[in-house]
Amino acid sequence: MNDIILKRGFASDNNSGVHPAVIEELVSVNRGHVVGYGGDPFTEKAYTMLRKELGSEAEIFFVFTGTAANVLGLAGAARSWNSVLTASTAHIEGDECGAPEKFAGCKVLTVDTPDGKIRPELLKRHMHGFDFEHHSQPAVISISQATEMGTVYTVDEIKALAGYAHSYNMLLHMDGARLANAAVSLGLPFRAFTTDAGVDILSFGGTKNGMMYGEAVCFLRPGIISGFKFLRKQGMQLASKMRFIAAQYIAYLTDDLWKECAAHSNTMAKELEKRLREIGGVTITQKVESNGIFIIMPPEVAERISKEYFFYSWNEQLSEYRLMTSWDTTSDDVNQFADLLAIMMSEKK
Amino acid sequence: MNDIILKRGFASDNNSGVHPAVIEELVSVNRGHVVGYGGDPFTEKAYTMLRKELGSEAEIFFVFTGTAANVLGLAGAARSWNSVLTASTAHIEGDECGAPEKFAGCKVLTVDTPDGKIRPELLKRHMHGFDFEHHSQPAVISISQATEMGTVYTVDEIKALAGYAHSYNMLLHMDGARLANAAVSLGLPFRAFTTDAGVDILSFGGTKNGMMYGEAVCFLRPGIISGFKFLRKQGMQLASKMRFIAAQYIAYLTDDLWKECAAHSNTMAKELEKRLREIGGVTITQKVESNGIFIIMPPEVAERISKEYFFYSWNEQLSEYRLMTSWDTTSDDVNQFADLLAIMMSEKK
Amino acid sequence: MNDIILKRGFASDNNSGVHPAVIEELVSVNRGHVVGYGGDPFTEKAYTMLRKELGSEAEIFFVFTGTAANVLGLAGAARSWNSVLTASTAHIEGDECGAPEKFAGCKVLTVDTPDGKIRPELLKRHMHGFDFEHHSQPAVISISQATEMGTVYTVDEIKALAGYAHSYNMLLHMDGARLANAAVSLGLPFRAFTTDAGVDILSFGGTKNGMMYGEAVCFLRPGIISGFKFLRKQGMQLASKMRFIAAQYIAYLTDDLWKECAAHSNTMAKELEKRLREIGGVTITQKVESNGIFIIMPPEVAERISKEYFFYSWNEQLSEYRLMTSWDTTSDDVNQFADLLAIMMSEKK
Amino acid sequence: MNDIILKRGFASDNNSGVHPAVIEELVSVNRGHVVGYGGDPFTEKAYTMLRKELGSEAEIFFVFTGTAANVLGLAGAARSWNSVLTASTAHIEGDECGAPEKFAGCKVLTVDTPDGKIRPELLKRHMHGFDFEHHSQPAVISISQATEMGTVYTVDEIKALAGYAHSYNMLLHMDGARLANAAVSLGLPFRAFTTDAGVDILSFGGTKNGMMYGEAVCFLRPGIISGFKFLRKQGMQLASKMRFIAAQYIAYLTDDLWKECAAHSNTMAKELEKRLREIGGVTITQKVESNGIFIIMPPEVAERISKEYFFYSWNEQLSEYRLMTSWDTTSDDVNQFADLLAIMMSEKK
Repeated sequence: MNDIILKRGFASDNNSGVHPAVIEELVSVNRGHVVGYGGDPFTEKAYTMLRKELGSEAEIFFVFTGTAANVLGLAGAARSWNSVLTASTAHIEGDECGAPEKFAGCKVLTVDTPDGKIRPELLKRHMHGFDFEHHSQPAVISISQATEMGTVYTVDEIKALAGYAHSYNMLLHMDGARLANAAVSLGLPFRAFTTDAGVDILSFGGTKNGMMYGEAVCFLRPGIISGFKFLRKQGMQLASKMRFIAAQYIAYLTDDLWKECAAHSNTMAKELEKRLREIGGVTITQKVESNGIFIIMPPEVAERISKEYFFYSWNEQLSEYRLMTSWDTTSDDVNQFADLLAIMMSEKK
Repeated sequence: MNDIILKRGFASDNNSGVHPAVIEELVSVNRGHVVGYGGDPFTEKAYTMLRKELGSEAEIFFVFTGTAANVLGLAGAARSWNSVLTASTAHIEGDECGAPEKFAGCKVLTVDTPDGKIRPELLKRHMHGFDFEHHSQPAVISISQATEMGTVYTVDEIKALAGYAHSYNMLLHMDGARLANAAVSLGLPFRAFTTDAGVDILSFGGTKNGMMYGEAVCFLRPGIISGFKFLRKQGMQLASKMRFIAAQYIAYLTDDLWKECAAHSNTMAKELEKRLREIGGVTITQKVESNGIFIIMPPEVAERISKEYFFYSWNEQLSEYRLMTSWDTTSDDVNQFADLLAIMMSEKK
Repeated sequence: MNDIILKRGFASDNNSGVHPAVIEELVSVNRGHVVGYGGDPFTEKAYTMLRKELGSEAEIFFVFTGTAANVLGLAGAARSWNSVLTASTAHIEGDECGAPEKFAGCKVLTVDTPDGKIRPELLKRHMHGFDFEHHSQPAVISISQATEMGTVYTVDEIKALAGYAHSYNMLLHMDGARLANAAVSLGLPFRAFTTDAGVDILSFGGTKNGMMYGEAVCFLRPGIISGFKFLRKQGMQLASKMRFIAAQYIAYLTDDLWKECAAHSNTMAKELEKRLREIGGVTITQKVESNGIFIIMPPEVAERISKEYFFYSWNEQLSEYRLMTSWDTTSDDVNQFADLLAIMMSEKK
Repeated sequence: MNDIILKRGFASDNNSGVHPAVIEELVSVNRGHVVGYGGDPFTEKAYTMLRKELGSEAEIFFVFTGTAANVLGLAGAARSWNSVLTASTAHIEGDECGAPEKFAGCKVLTVDTPDGKIRPELLKRHMHGFDFEHHSQPAVISISQATEMGTVYTVDEIKALAGYAHSYNMLLHMDGARLANAAVSLGLPFRAFTTDAGVDILSFGGTKNGMMYGEAVCFLRPGIISGFKFLRKQGMQLASKMRFIAAQYIAYLTDDLWKECAAHSNTMAKELEKRLREIGGVTITQKVESNGIFIIMPPEVAERISKEYFFYSWNEQLSEYRLMTSWDTTSDDVNQFADLLAIMMSEKK
């Protein structure tokens, strides 16, 4: 493989590799025979460590991907005649190719938000038709923490949504693909803005922050689900050699590796933000609260720099682009990108 | 972890760990940034290596598990009003918790077989109702190679089933969770008993033979599928850091690692068979053609030895049990188990 | 329309028209405006009449077809990871094009029976894997009364199956597409062999016995379902002008119209049986206990007579055919058919 | 039944009964035996009549309800990874309890509109992500004609949407639950604003305009579907005694009964509109182009008059209500309602 292909860029935090400590733990558990499908001591250890973070009542199930964690988490709590309310920018709406609808059979109803964060008042338009059989019954509010726009819910905002959901006998689901970035951003332990803030169902991810694969569906309160282990298997998400997902979570939660990785990633985002703000003609469109930066730049510059760096267009009409930092981004990476962009912008004028 | 928990036994070939060469390759690809979701050079390399084994027209898609490979492979070829015909012992019938029905919406129709192998004449009972809208339309015949009973289809048997399927405009699907064990058993390259024998869709697995996770859905002929990449994503089976599945296949197919592992596993099964045949009161119920051995032993002995070794009951009424060897089984493992069983059997008398 | 096309034959009890009393009631309720979707007084009246037959705790929901009644009844009680156990001749297995799998997502597991009637001992092969997440969890036993083979379960047989089901914490479902024919055959009120015999879920049909369309899903015991009204709507089975289904049930249950129709149909079957038994070379293969007669006759004769009478082949290999009588079959119909068959059989020799 | 219950109001056009000519035809086809499930001459006749209206290439399938017609029509054309784009007021979005998602597995994406009518420029926000596997692939644009807001698309508006859809290789679906009202409003034959305007899939309804039950799924161009007859059966929408749906369509299309009924209904809406406009404090919020009138009135008046007349709240926050006229509404009905409302409004001041 040539080096150009493997150059660190800002396309996505899943373009990065795996933290060495995670690899080490994979090697460490790779000995002897253990019962498959989660009946092994490593899985039990990892679940215990997660419960230490999230509360002793949490029921935890490993699956393979963030999409699967979201879909199975929702399917565990919602029946096919229910609806899930979320932001129009949510991963479950725009980036899962209809997996929630296909697997859970339910509706996903969205609200537009300026910053990827929903608020109770935005949800009102979908809060009707209760008990009316023609209408999908609202059952879950789903938020992403950090959001797909790089913003982060405060504890109070989450509590308000949880209270709102519970007042309608609904549940609050959190897509935590970037949970660590949010925790670092808030300066809080996981529990403070999940279980303790009223979240009922959590997708606890790590792949975007140094893990290889695997995600944890966490039911944070008793009584939410029944038969979930069958749903996971039927959902094609039961790992035979589950110890290797467990190993990654063990590494991730040991010595706060998650925090180290996310803190670094967030810091790099701040550095990148600072550099980008200095470049004339480049506009930052969202608060940089985790590891995503959304910028508007001229399309011809975007096209030119994308020959050196792969990244995603967010809104073609606005010429808005998404940049993501990662646990392995370096200040050099930031500066090289910013220098290049600065040159291209100046050449444009 | 104490050593007892990690003792190598004969419960399942997925109770073993990962071959060191696979780990090495995981480490090797863990550098730099690459595009996620399969747009990376490692995935392309692995797909090329698989096409070298299966034919240049094969379309290949990595997923996470054998269940997913089977279900998505079937769902790619069958519509919800179709039926899939298989042996009553097939993994898709008894071990996937209804995932084919849930995801593909189709029927799985079974035939009883003495040895896990279906033959065209056994299928006749389901070959009716064509074009009759009240009846699910037979669309796929699914076989497992090696079978769940440890037996292996010959090339001629597969060709007969392929010809039969194609004469009805149906497709032949092969669950190859233990494809390498079958290849070694037949002494043939993969292609000889898959693509060249008329198989249309193949689940090419490696997790039971030294890999960590990941499976390849292979459409061996053009024109079988359309839109499959969407189905994979919607099926929650698109890996973000796909290079790490690719790496495993690269290792698995380099220097015939698959053959080394499977040959060893099959040899250990033969050794275990030989030892078990010498023990009075123990009956072997199926031909040992790959790495599975099915035995009848007195239930009280089974219970006693299961305190030392975990393994699965196959047929409670018959007091039949399944033993599986693995790529890491040693002759010592075989002899220790056989010695212990021999002692327990003699003590019983 | 010419008369040949409209000739009464023995193809199916749904080839007949609608009883005049049913038409009369349709006309009778066709006045004024009433709330749609079942919130009308006619629907309430019909439900009350059905509860009088089935017990005051029955929860009743009208749907459009027998297939829908079966599928929704099962989907109301079973989750996608469950299995439904039934006879291989059951309508839900062979005649609903996979609707149970598609809509409920569950597995349908079958047992072969000589006469369409399942017995507890036949079910044993599927009674395993409880709580094992790889295996669909048995949740419902489904029987047809009368069966698709024209046979009828006795009360004791039903009680035995109910007891067996309940001992496993499973439910007993009854497909009553020909419930009236069974009731007449047994000489019992509906309740005696449904609610009182331990049946939990009942599809109470009338279309094959003089109605036009519509079927009742009946949950005979409290606590079986929740949210079923949403499932019915989502299942596309909520009638807007529901009073016209209700009207049919009102007519059907008034002055025991159901009994008059079914008694006539059963009697005609007995007459036809008698005549057929007198014809050399024709074999009756099943007990004639309701309105179906299964016969073996030479295929060339079958082909010849099918030019005059349309009917269905049941088992091509055996040259077995199904004849059904209907509420409007006459003795003349029976004799004309039997006479013609007798002539054709004699000409063949 | 007392008369109050059966009083004609303005709740819904499905609260009315069945036109006598429809009943007559039901009686007329109720003779002799015919093959079930649509293999009868009445169904063929009805299909021919529909093809005369819609074009000779139309493939037509009867189902039971409008929801079923929409869902099966969409499911016939879209795969589970597709999305359907529609107005947020569409029946498929708000009134089918998630049936499209459950049965077709696809996403329904909406746009807000002022009048229930979508325009190409409104759809732009969903027209992206083509070929991107993370994103549901837009496949169908669905419009209602007349809309749920009582408005009617012009031929040019439909052509613009069809052209837009086809330019993206998408299909145009029309929910024609009130197709006749639209035809009368436009003064055009069905074909002019369906097949000839580029519509690909049509739900052709009549139940809201004098029929009892039944709806026609019409694929207006060849090559859109394959295997649809199986999908209909699996979707629990295959009527056994289909002649009775056919009979209704025969009556509906004979001597333009549909036109007579819809013209009357539309006229009554105009009369009601005229009367309501004369009442101070009552605002009409949508153009009255078919048989629906949307009004804002004080909530306390709405509550008071709803004790005499049942009708639906449309937007609680706005105190907006929906009134529907029907084929059997009389001028007296209109005047009595308007008089009462006028009195109540005057008493309020």
